[in-house]
Amino acid sequence: MMCFKAVHFSEVTNEDAGEPGVKIRWLIKREDGAPNFAMRYFELEPKAKSPHHSHEWEHEVFILDGQCNVFCDGQEKTASEGYVVYVPPKSVHHFENIGENRLRFLCLVPHKK
Amino acid sequence: MMCFKAVHFSEVTNEDAGEPGVKIRWLIKREDGAPNFAMRYFELEPKAKSPHHSHEWEHEVFILDGQCNVFCDGQEKTASEGYVVYVPPKSVHHFENIGENRLRFLCLVPHKK
Repeated sequence: MMCFKAVHFSEVTNEDAGEPGVKIRWLIKREDGAPNFAMRYFELEPKAKSPHHSHEWEHEVFILDGQCNVFCDGQEKTASEGYVVYVPPKSVHHFENIGENRLRFLCLVPHKK
Repeated sequence: MMCFKAVHFSEVTNEDAGEPGVKIRWLIKREDGAPNFAMRYFELEPKAKSPHHSHEWEHEVFILDGQCNVFCDGQEKTASEGYVVYVPPKSVHHFENIGENRLRFLCLVPHKK
């Protein structure tokens, strides 16, 4: 059994997420012993966006600060600090930073089978 | 397929969590269509604590604000805003608010089978 972990997010490696102005930190992952799902931390520069795409898994998101538009299956909603967003499996979606400051959110996903 | 959801946490029902000074909001749950895991939001008054217990499932936690001690299998760590905590399945654990202000954190769990 893996040990208990408690670290500040800033201690976790900050990686390029593959899109301009988008960084990712894998806060809790399979290697920590987590059996079911992963916690990721995203930071987007102003105007940065995640890819407009679809996949088999869901997203569970909590906005820490900043302001974004969330696009999902032709719908669009604005979200800011304290918003919770659920993106269903197979939906076509993306997040875009529409504010003047950085956008930070948690995005959790099930482990790939 | 369930729809995309984007709401402020304060729009989600605030419920007693079963311990003095501990409230819970189920931000994303099975009824939202989430197939694998749930996102819960906890608020603890100063000195409030979660029960010292053990169960078959893990916790994935992110501290939003406040200051707490996390106890897990005889270890103890202090965590505050921006800390990520992973509590493994079957560990004996609890969270205690040791600050002068409220403690707020997200705690995600897999759905019960």
